[in-house]
Amino acid sequence: MHNKHTRCARPSQLGILIGLAVGTFGSPSAALSQAPEPTRSQALLGAVEAESLERWHDLVAERPHMAGTPGDLAVIQHLVESFEAMGLEVERHPVRTWIAKPVSARLAIAAPTPIELSIQEPALDNDPDTSDPALLIGWNAYSGSGAVEAEVVYANYGRLEDFEKLLELGVDCTGKIIIARYGGNFRGYKAKFAEAAGAAGLIIYTDPADSGWGKGLSWPEGVWSGEESIQRGSIMTLPYAGDPLSPMVEAKPGAEFLDPGSVELPNIPVQPIGWASAAQILSRMGGESVSGNWQGGLPFRYRLEGGPELRVQLEVVQERFFADTANVIGILRGSEEPERMVLVGSHHDAWGCGASDPTSGLITVLEAARILSQEVRAQGPFRRSIAFAGWGAEEFGIIGSTEWVEADLDRARHKIVAYMNLDGAAGGVQLSASASPSLQSLIAEIAGELPQPGSNNESALDNWRARGTHPGFDALPRFGDLGGGSDHVGFLALGGVPCVGFNGGGSPGTAYHTNYDTRAWYRSAVGSDYAAAKLIAGGAILFAARLADAAVLPLDIERTAPEVLRHLRNLTRRGRALGLFKESERPIDLGLARAEAAALQYGERATELAQRVRAAGQDPELDATTRESLNETLMQLDRAWLAAEGLPDRPWFQNLFAAPDESSGYSSWMLPALRRAIEDLDVRALAREETRLLTVIARLNQGLDELDRALQ
Amino acid sequence: MHNKHTRCARPSQLGILIGLAVGTFGSPSAALSQAPEPTRSQALLGAVEAESLERWHDLVAERPHMAGTPGDLAVIQHLVESFEAMGLEVERHPVRTWIAKPVSARLAIAAPTPIELSIQEPALDNDPDTSDPALLIGWNAYSGSGAVEAEVVYANYGRLEDFEKLLELGVDCTGKIIIARYGGNFRGYKAKFAEAAGAAGLIIYTDPADSGWGKGLSWPEGVWSGEESIQRGSIMTLPYAGDPLSPMVEAKPGAEFLDPGSVELPNIPVQPIGWASAAQILSRMGGESVSGNWQGGLPFRYRLEGGPELRVQLEVVQERFFADTANVIGILRGSEEPERMVLVGSHHDAWGCGASDPTSGLITVLEAARILSQEVRAQGPFRRSIAFAGWGAEEFGIIGSTEWVEADLDRARHKIVAYMNLDGAAGGVQLSASASPSLQSLIAEIAGELPQPGSNNESALDNWRARGTHPGFDALPRFGDLGGGSDHVGFLALGGVPCVGFNGGGSPGTAYHTNYDTRAWYRSAVGSDYAAAKLIAGGAILFAARLADAAVLPLDIERTAPEVLRHLRNLTRRGRALGLFKESERPIDLGLARAEAAALQYGERATELAQRVRAAGQDPELDATTRESLNETLMQLDRAWLAAEGLPDRPWFQNLFAAPDESSGYSSWMLPALRRAIEDLDVRALAREETRLLTVIARLNQGLDELDRALQ
Repeated sequence: MHNKHTRCARPSQLGILIGLAVGTFGSPSAALSQAPEPTRSQALLGAVEAESLERWHDLVAERPHMAGTPGDLAVIQHLVESFEAMGLEVERHPVRTWIAKPVSARLAIAAPTPIELSIQEPALDNDPDTSDPALLIGWNAYSGSGAVEAEVVYANYGRLEDFEKLLELGVDCTGKIIIARYGGNFRGYKAKFAEAAGAAGLIIYTDPADSGWGKGLSWPEGVWSGEESIQRGSIMTLPYAGDPLSPMVEAKPGAEFLDPGSVELPNIPVQPIGWASAAQILSRMGGESVSGNWQGGLPFRYRLEGGPELRVQLEVVQERFFADTANVIGILRGSEEPERMVLVGSHHDAWGCGASDPTSGLITVLEAARILSQEVRAQGPFRRSIAFAGWGAEEFGIIGSTEWVEADLDRARHKIVAYMNLDGAAGGVQLSASASPSLQSLIAEIAGELPQPGSNNESALDNWRARGTHPGFDALPRFGDLGGGSDHVGFLALGGVPCVGFNGGGSPGTAYHTNYDTRAWYRSAVGSDYAAAKLIAGGAILFAARLADAAVLPLDIERTAPEVLRHLRNLTRRGRALGLFKESERPIDLGLARAEAAALQYGERATELAQRVRAAGQDPELDATTRESLNETLMQLDRAWLAAEGLPDRPWFQNLFAAPDESSGYSSWMLPALRRAIEDLDVRALAREETRLLTVIARLNQGLDELDRALQ
Repeated sequence: MHNKHTRCARPSQLGILIGLAVGTFGSPSAALSQAPEPTRSQALLGAVEAESLERWHDLVAERPHMAGTPGDLAVIQHLVESFEAMGLEVERHPVRTWIAKPVSARLAIAAPTPIELSIQEPALDNDPDTSDPALLIGWNAYSGSGAVEAEVVYANYGRLEDFEKLLELGVDCTGKIIIARYGGNFRGYKAKFAEAAGAAGLIIYTDPADSGWGKGLSWPEGVWSGEESIQRGSIMTLPYAGDPLSPMVEAKPGAEFLDPGSVELPNIPVQPIGWASAAQILSRMGGESVSGNWQGGLPFRYRLEGGPELRVQLEVVQERFFADTANVIGILRGSEEPERMVLVGSHHDAWGCGASDPTSGLITVLEAARILSQEVRAQGPFRRSIAFAGWGAEEFGIIGSTEWVEADLDRARHKIVAYMNLDGAAGGVQLSASASPSLQSLIAEIAGELPQPGSNNESALDNWRARGTHPGFDALPRFGDLGGGSDHVGFLALGGVPCVGFNGGGSPGTAYHTNYDTRAWYRSAVGSDYAAAKLIAGGAILFAARLADAAVLPLDIERTAPEVLRHLRNLTRRGRALGLFKESERPIDLGLARAEAAALQYGERATELAQRVRAAGQDPELDATTRESLNETLMQLDRAWLAAEGLPDRPWFQNLFAAPDESSGYSSWMLPALRRAIEDLDVRALAREETRLLTVIARLNQGLDELDRALQ
């Protein structure tokens, strides 16, 4: 089973990339796509150049390029020109969206002694990028505008449980300025909970325990945050991604936008600061001591309240406006199934220079485009199209990618084979991924072909697996669950597209969303050898080529059932922990047991059919009708999870398999409608959602029927 | 089975205290002593007075009273006079011992800029006790004397693993001054490991993460350490307790002492400081960043090395000398078995005023003596003697109590029924205890009769059990294992005496070994109502009365086997974790299995006999010969653990059941000879020690034979 085919120049058989060998790792079920001739993969990977990645980095990260600014338009133009120079079909997709910009802000202690507090990082002598005049003050996009003077209350991480704790302790937030530290949730929820608690304003700061001396030496001596590092970021928390005024509608010039007043954007002023400024406030607080885990790293005991002596002034002025930006998509058009598209992307907008976030990922998209366009020029087109995307305005609310999905839902639901998201992906050489079940085996197979930087014989897969194997499936490395927070969200939630967040990590340090996220920081923290970016670009290249060229799509139908079972069992545990089963042990146990039984049964059928699909894929005589029928069905299986009515209270999120956590934003809820019912201890909703899950499994079974028919 | 006997005035039947009821908690096997008429216990407990405890506190903790100082002699005199006033038989047991005193010390940064560093706590305005002229600088007793100027190395907690880590990282300690934080082990081992690593000196400081703002507000606003709080303490680490120059020999005028030069006392200068001084050094260090868990709470990243620019001067001058101090023992002589003695004690010496350590415990000894002497005056003597002890020079190395044991080994091995240690015991109202197996049931029974302060119907046992039950025996609250660090050590290690460390905790804060351990601190941190001391005094009273008065001793023979089995299984786990069984799975598994089988078999016999012993104890017709035979055997069962040849490399420690940890000092090693063999991965030693354990179990079985014979 390790036949190597001789290279064949016929363009429609870029089967040069796809041999008949079994996969790199042991399980036969994992050999979904046929592995390439090693020399061919190696040649593609060998074409990736550190110098080229460094040039892309200089092109994009040289200047601040926040969405809606001249720097943004310059980057868009660079992307258009770069893709054109590669000979790609270029789509410059315009986006008109309701974003914000800072006008002015001020933070000061008014009493007992007036002190003005810094709200912007100073320029650093050794890094000219930090003195760019286009760099802005620290700000949180979509903050309310206003000036308040008030007492302060410390709210730890500003999570739901932190505000609940304050309530329990009798600490009144009404009319106060909340000061909370970054971490523990999406910053937007800190603002949402503060406003809900009646606060007059919110200050968010970076605590040295979490990102500074608690972790390591500060930039520029080390690679961690310094006392004036300020994390910027959006605080929008709407029950949908994308432009805030056009859910489900493409945000473009002339679109029907909602009235801004009808959308729940923050009303109170919100200001991010560094810990030097925060310490000025926190050290002057006079109330009760916090309890244990609320203490941060500043050198005094934290307190819950400032008391009446300490008065803080916070003034934030922002302008909300329609900005024009764009997604840029470069397409290598396929020859056989040109409408079907494998998509690899990263956003291009950044809060400052964004050398790490997003540009360390965007340069791998550009490099993958460069290598694969060379390949196509030399060997002819792939079977299917490959698209390389730079998304706009992600930082404000995953806007560009979402609008592209909303612009053509049919494309997302029927034409996009898979999406690989590479937002800031090259942060180190330890590969990991969060992936839809149907992509896990392919990603592992690709990782097995990527040499681990700095090792002799180890693959990136070896390194990844050594850090932990997948729960319940030792043959795979540990995959994460897809959460929120980046450009896969629209594809997954609205399109049912198989998605993977591909990521290199392991380098210590952070300059996240600060004015210090520059090439100098990146080259010091992650490396000037671009080994991490080479690794990620290589993975993107193999991913795109494999999915674009395989006769039968290497989408794994076997992984879904075990993943559903795993999530069901986690939900059962969660329900038990919440005491849900105390009142009604029997019906709910039976309920989840029904879903488990259905998933198990589906899994058995899927395993049997998967073997036949693989055999068909390896059959050189496979007829075109069968192949097309198999591919069409394989494409649609992930879409079985879409439900037009969406999630409870979040109808925009239509994927019943995964969604972002409702109250933290970044992490994931798996089987989110069931999860919501369990969190609510709502037995009736649980029964309803279990029925919806059984409906999904029934659709999945129909898919198997179709595969079965096609193979007969 | 809940018969209440009418009170009877006949002195020999202070069976008034001992009814026939089963124990307070469910298991019949726990009903070892016959429970008292509730009203009688309540009357004794009701006689305990907060005002009296406060007066004892004022008497002892008003002035600094370190061993060998005039304050020490004054306290000794107070104790003698107090016991005499109660009508007790008083033994003033003189101890001449080789201790140390500070002459001078100096700590400074020499370069790059000279800075003198503080080595004593400043007086506090609101606490006159902190300005007593008898208070001393911060110092570690038995430090070497000398002056060094050197670079510095940070060694985290100065544990064995910390110095191993430095070695692994290539950090050379030779000729350097080590700076290490308190915590993680007995401070003496920090000095021992630093000296072994070739260091020229050692600075030990209190880190704010461990005892300061990481825990709460600082004294005097809160109850935690402040930036100038300095923890004093001995750094002697010899393989025996007591006077360093007279192991196994009573340290008294005219004794044959060892040559001080022949004893391994520290040679390098060692100085404790507060974090304000430590921060001056640590913040100026210039080497590599520490890794994760070495970071403390000071507001900068900690580094491994100071580098050549930073030079620190440390000068310590101490005098070692023969000091005269004394133990004071007050005895309520028994009427029937006057030689048999129940012992309750606490040391009396302190580093400063010692309001918490040891005096919060010593006052409960005094109060118990007051109440029980009143009782004896009113009702006549108990069957057996009760002794109340104030031990001298504990802080230097558990000296006074050890010398008292060494002065009369026969007394310890044959006459002391049990020892309750109350060193600093009243630190809060959450009762707990570490106890020999034979005392666990009695302690739990007593705890069941102590009302939980601040609750309506809860007993101290309820409160204790709610915090956790004993591993493998849910009827008991969680008992600790007896470790090192206080006056039970000599009784346990040399005398095989059943011991209990009885303790009230749960109040946050610490002034441990600082000049701020004053009555003002204690009354603020633990309470001015003396509820904790009332609780502990009550426990001591019931413990002494119960053991002194029961016809048949309430020593539980049932708990030994389950505890041995638990420790054997922990040792097996430890051996597995260390990889001991990888090379020789079979013989060692069988070895421990043999010991387990023997312990199990012993346990079955013990359970059967325990029931018969209890029945005999409840028999009003029990003849004197049988009673005496039972008591003599019950007394000797705990001594079955003594082995004349002692532990490997620690022959002074003769108890094979428990010993202090070899390299941390405070914690315990259970079945310590087996533990040592496992730590050494020494299969041959393991076999030898397993044989020694089987010999102990054989002796225990002989004890059961004797009980059996006596009962026939």
